[in-house]
Amino acid sequence: MRLLIIGSVAYDTVKTPFGARERVLGGSASYSSLAASYFTQVSVLAVVGEDFRQEDKALLESRGVDLSALSTVPGGKTFHWKGEYGYDLNDAKTIQTDLNVLGTFDPDVPDHLKDAPYVFLANLDPTAQMKVLDQITQPRVVAADTMNYWIDQRRDGLMDLLPRIHILIINEAETRQLSGEYNLVKAARAILALGPKMLIIKRGEYGVLKVTEDSIFAAPAYPLESVFDPTGAGDTFAGGFVGYLAKTGDLSPESVKTAIVMGSIMASFNVEDFSLNRLLTLRQEDIEDRFRAFKQLTEFSGAV
Amino acid sequence: MRLLIIGSVAYDTVKTPFGARERVLGGSASYSSLAASYFTQVSVLAVVGEDFRQEDKALLESRGVDLSALSTVPGGKTFHWKGEYGYDLNDAKTIQTDLNVLGTFDPDVPDHLKDAPYVFLANLDPTAQMKVLDQITQPRVVAADTMNYWIDQRRDGLMDLLPRIHILIINEAETRQLSGEYNLVKAARAILALGPKMLIIKRGEYGVLKVTEDSIFAAPAYPLESVFDPTGAGDTFAGGFVGYLAKTGDLSPESVKTAIVMGSIMASFNVEDFSLNRLLTLRQEDIEDRFRAFKQLTEFSGAV
Repeated sequence: MRLLIIGSVAYDTVKTPFGARERVLGGSASYSSLAASYFTQVSVLAVVGEDFRQEDKALLESRGVDLSALSTVPGGKTFHWKGEYGYDLNDAKTIQTDLNVLGTFDPDVPDHLKDAPYVFLANLDPTAQMKVLDQITQPRVVAADTMNYWIDQRRDGLMDLLPRIHILIINEAETRQLSGEYNLVKAARAILALGPKMLIIKRGEYGVLKVTEDSIFAAPAYPLESVFDPTGAGDTFAGGFVGYLAKTGDLSPESVKTAIVMGSIMASFNVEDFSLNRLLTLRQEDIEDRFRAFKQLTEFSGAV
Repeated sequence: MRLLIIGSVAYDTVKTPFGARERVLGGSASYSSLAASYFTQVSVLAVVGEDFRQEDKALLESRGVDLSALSTVPGGKTFHWKGEYGYDLNDAKTIQTDLNVLGTFDPDVPDHLKDAPYVFLANLDPTAQMKVLDQITQPRVVAADTMNYWIDQRRDGLMDLLPRIHILIINEAETRQLSGEYNLVKAARAILALGPKMLIIKRGEYGVLKVTEDSIFAAPAYPLESVFDPTGAGDTFAGGFVGYLAKTGDLSPESVKTAIVMGSIMASFNVEDFSLNRLLTLRQEDIEDRFRAFKQLTEFSGAV
């Protein structure tokens, strides 16, 4: 089933201990849509500037991502993020953020996408996320990401959004920040009480925790010997996760667990290279191989 | 099969956000032997002072722990650790360490324990760990713990020990410290090259990673809503882990995975109360219930 993703399409300037890249394609919508493209049909609602390169459009389209709702602001410049990582790749240091065309992004959903059954609202101002949601006629599953800035500066908007989404995808520190609880299970339950049916807590190199009212599921991150660039890992996870749910149309706890593993696998590929490079060269069998390896990584048997 | 544990028997003075306890029974040998006692026969080689309370001996013996190698130094005082935790329970702040009788501990293995097939060398000076090992006639499995202080101050002794043990149990930061590698998988492989066949990396609330030359296994920590006191969690894990291996006598990868889960389960119980309280009240069916819950927590199915 079709998945509509709203988020950023960006140029990133990134430095890690393993190299550097200037103004390469990035942004939450780029990472999540490419990851999702391995599982389902994806449309991106986003905005870029006149400087956005035709070849970057072609890259996304090469994986079948529908860009009919990607608008270009005449005379505008594409959102640009500049960041750096030390050896602790969990910790990005933002050097510069040029919002550019993203600063005035007022998302309009084109008519032909208003019936999207699956929606992923990537990290944006909750007001913009809500505006998109208002235009979707009958969403079956809505997943949303957010960040510390919105929790702090747009708490009211976020509180209005929470009852209208099914799945909130946030990181560990944000879970504590939003709930005011230190214990992660308590924190997650407190957020569930605000509306979402499911919390997906991203823990960086430690993996992901899913918490619902009556269940918890833990998936490790796939351990890698070579991580080149963690940029976009969270968005890639989200894209793989929601993309797999949209593919199967199955929202049972078992299917959600598999979706979480798929998201983790896509994220593990993404960090193996800069920008979207690895996501563009993946083969179906790479994903299948890593799915088997992931089982090996976590499966145990035996009895007390 | 019998498991011999050498380590500390201590009095701990502990403060957490949830309460405080003064001079309660603790120490690596106490935690690990109690955890192991649920799976196999355990003997403790350790030293205490004349202040060691008869009722604390009785507590350990109530679980069948053999204390025939627990010696009392006349006029001496039992090792005492005083520490504090904030809301981040991964991070213990040591306020005071009184080595007391542990400062001059020169471990002699009594004749009746020299044929112990399973040995756990809890965190001690590597020279003392080696001395114990020299007295064991035919160990089948030797697991050892260590800490940042010995890696820094007794590196040579530790390097001598590593080729003689099968399993090294250390935490994440120590893995990086010992290897000089930041990437955890690379770090683990570098340590395997120094001798041990298996590395068990403790990651606190994120669980455990097992690394061998050709496999990796990840177990999450069991997520709890109420953690009262994390003291001894690592030792409890080690005791449950080695205890289960000693119970089955099976060192296959499958059995080791199950053992890691058992260790994780024992640790998850231990942090639910202060000192050894929870480990003393556990029933077999509590362990079985949590083993099933652990499966629920980690198991997934499906396909790409």
